[in-house]
Amino acid sequence: MAQNIYDRPEFFAGYSSLARSTEGLAGAPEWPALQAMLPDIENRRVVDLGCGFGWFCRWAHEQGAASVLGLDVSEKMLERAAATSDASIEYRRADLEELRLPAAAYDIAYSSLALHYVEDVGRLFATVFRALAPGGMFVFSTEHPVLMAPTNPGWSIDAEGKKTWPVDRYFIEGRRTTDWLAKGVVKYHRTIGTTLNALMAAGFMLTHVEEFCPSAEQIAIRPELAEELERPMFLLVSARR
Amino acid sequence: MAQNIYDRPEFFAGYSSLARSTEGLAGAPEWPALQAMLPDIENRRVVDLGCGFGWFCRWAHEQGAASVLGLDVSEKMLERAAATSDASIEYRRADLEELRLPAAAYDIAYSSLALHYVEDVGRLFATVFRALAPGGMFVFSTEHPVLMAPTNPGWSIDAEGKKTWPVDRYFIEGRRTTDWLAKGVVKYHRTIGTTLNALMAAGFMLTHVEEFCPSAEQIAIRPELAEELERPMFLLVSARR
Repeated sequence: MAQNIYDRPEFFAGYSSLARSTEGLAGAPEWPALQAMLPDIENRRVVDLGCGFGWFCRWAHEQGAASVLGLDVSEKMLERAAATSDASIEYRRADLEELRLPAAAYDIAYSSLALHYVEDVGRLFATVFRALAPGGMFVFSTEHPVLMAPTNPGWSIDAEGKKTWPVDRYFIEGRRTTDWLAKGVVKYHRTIGTTLNALMAAGFMLTHVEEFCPSAEQIAIRPELAEELERPMFLLVSARR
Repeated sequence: MAQNIYDRPEFFAGYSSLARSTEGLAGAPEWPALQAMLPDIENRRVVDLGCGFGWFCRWAHEQGAASVLGLDVSEKMLERAAATSDASIEYRRADLEELRLPAAAYDIAYSSLALHYVEDVGRLFATVFRALAPGGMFVFSTEHPVLMAPTNPGWSIDAEGKKTWPVDRYFIEGRRTTDWLAKGVVKYHRTIGTTLNALMAAGFMLTHVEEFCPSAEQIAIRPELAEELERPMFLLVSARR
C-alpha cells in the first residue's frame, strides 16, 4: 500500500494552493511538452493514473475521448474531481502499488507526477502494458532522478549568487523521505536507466524521452522558472504497446 | 572537422597512461556493463567509432568477428592500434563529424566515450543507422550529461567530507571546454532526452539504457570508484536498427 500523503490535511491544503491545482494544466509548466507527446485523444479510451483534481481527465473529455477513467489514492482529491467534472468521467480510488486493470481496455494511459510515489514500478508498467490495446500509448511525467537523488535536495548558492544543484546518492535507489508540503513524504528514487529499462522489460517501445525545460516565453511570464535551466526537474516519457 | 585533441603531445601522453589505455578493456570500469549489452560477436561485421588503441577491435577479433574496422581521428592512436593488432583488423582515419560508411555493411556498431566529442550527433546516428544491416545493433558509451553540464565540473566537499556533484547549465546544450589531460578540450553537452530522441529520430529502437554504476566488487578493488555511486558518469545505450 502506497503512502496516501495527499489526504493529510496539511499536505492537501498545501497542494490545493499550488498553481497546478488552482490553474490546472495551464499552471503546470511541463504540460505543453507532455501534451505534445500525446496522441490524438478523440474517440480514445483514456485512463489517468494519479488523476488528482481531474484536470487532465476533464481536458481529455473535452478533446472527445470515448471514455475517461481517473484513478487516485486520495479520497479528497477524487471527491473534488468528481464534483467539478462531467458525470461521464469515471473516478475511482486505486492504489498504483496494487493496481489491477482489465486487459486491452484503454488506448491511452497517462500519469502526471505520480510514479515517483510507486515503489514497484515494474509491476505497474506490466499492468499498464496489459491494460493498453495494441498500439496504445503510455505518456507520463515523473520527478527526475537528479531532483530526487540528493541526501539534502536543495539549491546551493555561492558568494556571487550562482546557483548549482548538488547531486549525491544517484545510484542509491529506493526510498527518499522529504519534507514537501508535509513532513515525511515518501518517494522512490530510480535512475533514468532503471525507469526506461523497466518500461522496455514490460514490453513497451520507447517513443520519446524528454527532460522538462522551461521555454523562454514561460520564463518571461514566470521568472522563477529560470532556475529550471540549471537542473532537470521532471522526466517525461512516451512509450507504445 | 572535430577537434583532434588526442594527437596533441600532452593529451596523448596523459591518455596513454590511463588504466583504460595500459590495461585495455579490463581497465575501463564500465566495460562489463557495455559488454553485457553487446550481442554475440561471432561471425558479425563490427565497426568501432573512435577505436583509440584498438582494445575493443582486438577483443572483437578474438571473439570471432567476421570483420573488424576501427575508426579514429587520431593518427597516433591508429598507429599504435595497427602495430599491436592482427593484420586482418582494418584501421582507418575518420572524423566522426563527417563520417561516411557503406550501406548495410555492418552488424554491430560500437563506440566507447567518443560521441561527446561530436557536435552533430543526429547526422552521425543517421550514418550509423544506414551502415547497419537490418537487425544490427549500435552499442555505445558517452559522458553522462550530469558529468558534462556544469560550468565548473568538480566535486564539492563539505566540512564533514561529504561529496556532492554540483550541477548547473543542464539545459544549455552545446560546446563545453574543459581542461582534462590538456587545456581546451572541446566536448558537446546534450541532455539524455536529446541523445535518445536523436537515436529514435534516426530510426533506431532503443533496447537498453544504463548509467555506469561501479559494482561492490569493483569498489573493493579500486576504492576511488566509490564516488561514482554519487553521480552518473557515463551513459550506456544499446539500440537496434
